[in-house]
Parts: sequence; C-alpha cells; structure tokens
Amino acid sequence: MDKFNRRDFLRKASVAAAAGGASLLWACGGAEEESGGAPAVQTRKKYEWKMVTTWPPGFPVLGEGAELFAKWVDEMSAGRLKIRVYGGGELVPALEAFDAVRQGVVQMGHAASYYWAGKTPASQFFASVPFGMNAQQMNAWILCAGGLELWRELYADFNLVPFPCGNTGVQMGGWFKRRIDAISDLQGLKMRIPGLGGKVIEKAGGSAVLSAGGEIFTNLERGVIDATEWIGPYHDYLMGFPKVADYYYYPGWHEPGTILELFVNKSAYEQLPADLQAIIFAASQRSNVWMLSEFEAKNAVYLQKIKAEYKTEILEFPAGVLRAFREYSAEVIEEVTAGDAMSKKVYKSFAKFQKEIGEWADITERAYYSRLSV
Amino acid sequence: MDKFNRRDFLRKASVAAAAGGASLLWACGGAEEESGGAPAVQTRKKYEWKMVTTWPPGFPVLGEGAELFAKWVDEMSAGRLKIRVYGGGELVPALEAFDAVRQGVVQMGHAASYYWAGKTPASQFFASVPFGMNAQQMNAWILCAGGLELWRELYADFNLVPFPCGNTGVQMGGWFKRRIDAISDLQGLKMRIPGLGGKVIEKAGGSAVLSAGGEIFTNLERGVIDATEWIGPYHDYLMGFPKVADYYYYPGWHEPGTILELFVNKSAYEQLPADLQAIIFAASQRSNVWMLSEFEAKNAVYLQKIKAEYKTEILEFPAGVLRAFREYSAEVIEEVTAGDAMSKKVYKSFAKFQKEIGEWADITERAYYSRLSV
Repeated sequence: MDKFNRRDFLRKASVAAAAGGASLLWACGGAEEESGGAPAVQTRKKYEWKMVTTWPPGFPVLGEGAELFAKWVDEMSAGRLKIRVYGGGELVPALEAFDAVRQGVVQMGHAASYYWAGKTPASQFFASVPFGMNAQQMNAWILCAGGLELWRELYADFNLVPFPCGNTGVQMGGWFKRRIDAISDLQGLKMRIPGLGGKVIEKAGGSAVLSAGGEIFTNLERGVIDATEWIGPYHDYLMGFPKVADYYYYPGWHEPGTILELFVNKSAYEQLPADLQAIIFAASQRSNVWMLSEFEAKNAVYLQKIKAEYKTEILEFPAGVLRAFREYSAEVIEEVTAGDAMSKKVYKSFAKFQKEIGEWADITERAYYSRLSV
Repeated sequence: MDKFNRRDFLRKASVAAAAGGASLLWACGGAEEESGGAPAVQTRKKYEWKMVTTWPPGFPVLGEGAELFAKWVDEMSAGRLKIRVYGGGELVPALEAFDAVRQGVVQMGHAASYYWAGKTPASQFFASVPFGMNAQQMNAWILCAGGLELWRELYADFNLVPFPCGNTGVQMGGWFKRRIDAISDLQGLKMRIPGLGGKVIEKAGGSAVLSAGGEIFTNLERGVIDATEWIGPYHDYLMGFPKVADYYYYPGWHEPGTILELFVNKSAYEQLPADLQAIIFAASQRSNVWMLSEFEAKNAVYLQKIKAEYKTEILEFPAGVLRAFREYSAEVIEEVTAGDAMSKKVYKSFAKFQKEIGEWADITERAYYSRLSV
C-alpha cells in the first residue's frame, strides 16, 4: 500500500475541483476513462476490477482503508480478484463515482452515501444524520436490525450492492474564528458545512458554504468563511486548520458516526462466484473495523499534537446551542422524509432502532463514559 | 447454522461441570477425542479442521458467532477449509480448549482470553480489565496501537496465534437480592463473579464464589449466593435471573468490553497457504463486528422485555461504591503486574493507550452519549 505523503497533502488538495455533497468530500477533477464491464463467469477465472473513490490517492485512513481492502481481497482470492484503487479524479471525478459504478464503467466505489442525496435522499441515513447514531449503533442497526436490507433495497434500483466499509467515529464540531456562546452567534456566520448539517446552520441564521477540500484553508485564512467542519484532529491537523482558527468545538452533532460505504456494480457482483462474493463481504468488515480503529488511535495522538503545538481553545458547544441544533435537525429530517417515501421508510427503521438502543446505551456505554473510563 | 433452542438453555446449562476462570465461562464435562494435527501443505489441498469453544453448542451470539465464522470461512475458501465447531464438553472440557489447541488435538478455539489467567496472567488484558477499555477502544488498541503484536508475542510461547473475534460490549453489573447503597453493603456478600472482578469483591469484604453456568440460577434462588454477574439482558433473561433477584445493577465496571478470541494452533496455521490465512483473519473481523452488533441489538430488545415482564429495579451503582471498586481494581492490577513481567509489559501498553484515547473519547464518545444521543 502506498503511504500517503503528508507533504503532498495540501498540494493534492489544492487541485481539487468544486465540491458538493457532504462533509468528507474531496471532489477532484480528472479525465474519464471508459472500460469494460464485469467479466463473464468461469471457474477459477481471474478478475481485474477497478475501484473509484471520493478521496485523494492514499488519503489517510479512508484512502488507505480502500487500498487495504483491495490488498486483503487479493490475498484471500490468491490473486483471482485484483482491484486497482483510484483516487477521486484519477479516473472519474469524485462526485461521479456512483454513476461510474452503476453504469459498469468500473466495478466498485468507496465513498460515503450522503454524497448521493441529490440522486436519492434516503441514502443519507446510511452515512450519518445530525443527532443520529454513533459507529457502534450504526453497525448494530445495519448488520443486525434490518438496516442493510433497506440499504440493499434502495441501491438495487441503481444496480448497486452496498456494504458498510469504515466509520469515522464521532467527529468534531468544527473550527471557528470566533466564540459561539449562544445560538444568536450563528447569525450571519459563514460556515463550510455540507448536507443536512448545512441546512441546520441555515435555519440558525448562518450560511452553509460549500468549498472543495483544497480551498477550505485559504477561505478560512482570508475570512471568506468564518468556520468549517471537517473530520477530527488527525485530518484537521494535516489540513492546517489550527493555524488559522482558534476555537475547536465539540461534539460533532452533525456527524456522530459516519459510515464509509463500499458499493459494487450489481451485475458484476452477481456474476462473481460465491467465494469471491463472500470474500468481498468479509474484507469490507475487516476494513470496517480497521478504519474506525485507525481513526480512534490517530485522533487521540493528533489531539495531543494540536494541544502541544497551537493555542487552540477546545470548547464544548453550549447546551442551548446544541438544543437549538437538535430542534432544527428534527425539522430538516421531517422535511426530507415528508418529500420522499423511501426516506420515510428508512428513517422509520432508523429512528425506532435509535430509540431502543438509546435506552440500552444509557445504562451501559453512557455510564461507561461518564463513570468508568479514565 | 444451528439455532440455539431457548427451551434447552437451562437444561444444557444444568449438565455443565465445575467452572473456573472467568465471567462468561460455561465449563462443560465431556469426552476427549484424539485427532490428527495440521495437514501438510499442498496446493488446492482441502483441510478439515475442528474448533472447540467454551460455550454450549449453539449458545446465543457467542456460539452462533463461532458457527458463522466457520460458515464464512467455508464460503470464502469454496470448501477448502471446513471447520467443525464443538461446544464446550462435546470434544474436550471447555477449560481444556487452550491446551487442546496448543497441543494440536484440534486446530482452533473460541473463548475469552481471561480464562487462561492461570496459565499466563497477561492473557487477562486481552479480554477485559475492571475499569479498562470498552469495545471500540479495545479494537483500536489491538488493531492499530500495538495490542495484537503483544498478544501474538504472548501466545507464541504456547504455539498459538490469537485474533480478536467478537466483543460483548459494556456488560451489566449483575443481579443482587438486596440493594447496594454503600460499599459496606458488600461485607459478607456472596457473589458469583470470577477473575479480577472477583478479587475486587473480596477486597470489599465479600466472597467471590465460582459456580458453573447451570448452577447459578438455583444457587441464587436458594440463597447459596446473594448476587451474580453474567453478561447483559439477552443472556440474563434466558438464564431466568429476573425471576429470583430484584435488583439489576449497572454499569459492568468489571467487564466494560470483553473481547472474544479466536486462537489457532501456530504450527497448523503456518502450514496453511497464504490465502487461507488471510481468510481466517477477515472472517475473524466479520465475526468481531457481528457479535458486538448482535449483542447490542438483542440486549436493547431484552432490556425492554425484562422491564415489561418483571418488577426488576434497574439501578446504577452509587458513586461511592464505584469509587471503592476503582481503588480496589487498581490494587488488583498492581498485584498481577508486580508478579509477572509479561503482564507488566502488556499493561504498560494498555494503560498508555487507555489514557490517550480517554482524553479523545472525553470530547467525542462521552459527549455523544451525554449530549447528543436520545
């Protein structure tokens, strides 16, 4: 696996093209390439597949996790299924990954499903929802409480088969150039925050601005924006945000546990022999655990680096601000589900499970973090 | 996969023999069987392996997860690696699983590593530690911060290769026949609680009693014991505990995120071709995520069943009691690490990582559970 070169981080980001979609997106421009669809079935046949991602090549954790997935599939299949991984823009622009895979231009993609909200709004519930579930709860819903079946139903209409394949964990709330002491401080605030979270900021009187990954630093430095969310300390440090904003807020109410997705062209997938299909599922779950673990381990280290190297103030959003965000989030979700039957169906399952597991978490995980952990 | 028959739950438990080791153990008597070691390497060779577990056959989540692991390996290898799963006592007694695998009587085992504390005390740190890390943090330590390397070093001396393969999540604190309002209420209390947690109870003036799984219900009903810990609502409901004890305490300070382990005979493992080795790792991680997810989903449902069907009082341990348990736990860990160099080395890594990730969790997962979740 090619290691991401940190010195290249901002240089690569700076060639990124216009972003849309949502939080983690790096939308990179690039040449399209046409290639064949899935190979026909044949015993012991070898497959050479392509995976497009929405991350820059070798992007820490996310791009690395996609490369590891391909490496593990290669090892398990003894070379029968080779997957070449492309960064966003290398083969098709990042935001065209969904269409490239559904049309069979390539066989696989790695992204976060809220990028496809414009194509099918229900996709957002399989990535992250403001005040929604965290990583452990999302896995339980997806794998053991009907979430994956709904996700497959949704994606089948696009000739895709989805798998959970990574999670960021609870994100940070973002970098601000001024303190947020009350919800009124959001009035007129220009924040880079896409997706449902952006709609919440707008309800609070701010402006949700979209910027490509490579433009955020400069926009924040020059005051084109007053704030930005991104992921957490590891990536935020590499992006240089602590150099240009002093207030780092938590928790990431807008993305409490974002699932990264693997999606496979359904026709290509169905032509694979059963052993390679099972290998794809297991590799996605090894990546699923690895990415969350790597985010957790690296964020812990980089939080300390930020504290040691910068005068960043790390602050909790005031209770009144979070209360207002929660109310606006409920309105935003109501608007999405009112306008789309599949969103309504998916969110019904999501919300029912969130309530059930919330009561259980209250006496276990919540109690762990408030009473047992160091 | 054979589904566990719930009507058989207590009947099967009632044939269990004397338990030792730790919390989750079902020690079942049974005939030993000698079988060959690992097959020799040969291209496209087929392997027929056996896995012994420390659970009753088909035991919910744990036994089911072991069966799923075997099914997924079978599918991925297209039948080249067949693993027959045995419940505790079906082939060798549960507590002999470790020796049976290291000696090559069988090739694999599924258990929790604290069962082997008598053989190597350091094993306990790869299962669960009082006031230690939860599932998400344990995965991060094991997979991305050096934990697995230490675990492999420890098990190499026993001719074994370990993999994390499941997690219970935060457990419950246990069932009590009387209220615990202060640490003085532990004086004279007879509690079924094995391992490090049991040593803590003894420091608090109680007696740690060992009972086999099948004897706990009767002992609790008849007052032979005053309290017992087990796992969480799903298993505890099936064990019938709400029928004979009224107070259900949380959180499970003694087991905040117990890893279930897969261990493979090292000589047999090293003779496998690389593709089958990679298949074992990936299947262990699919099981790792699945078991935690299944525990979370089922515990949420069974917590509601207990509330609906019984007059159980669900209570948080008073802060003073948890404070005392924490102090005693530190003493117990100090005693273990002072007497064993490998325990000291492993716990140093464990404790360093717990501190790092604790500060990160404080502004993310803790904040999530206290401020964002429903």
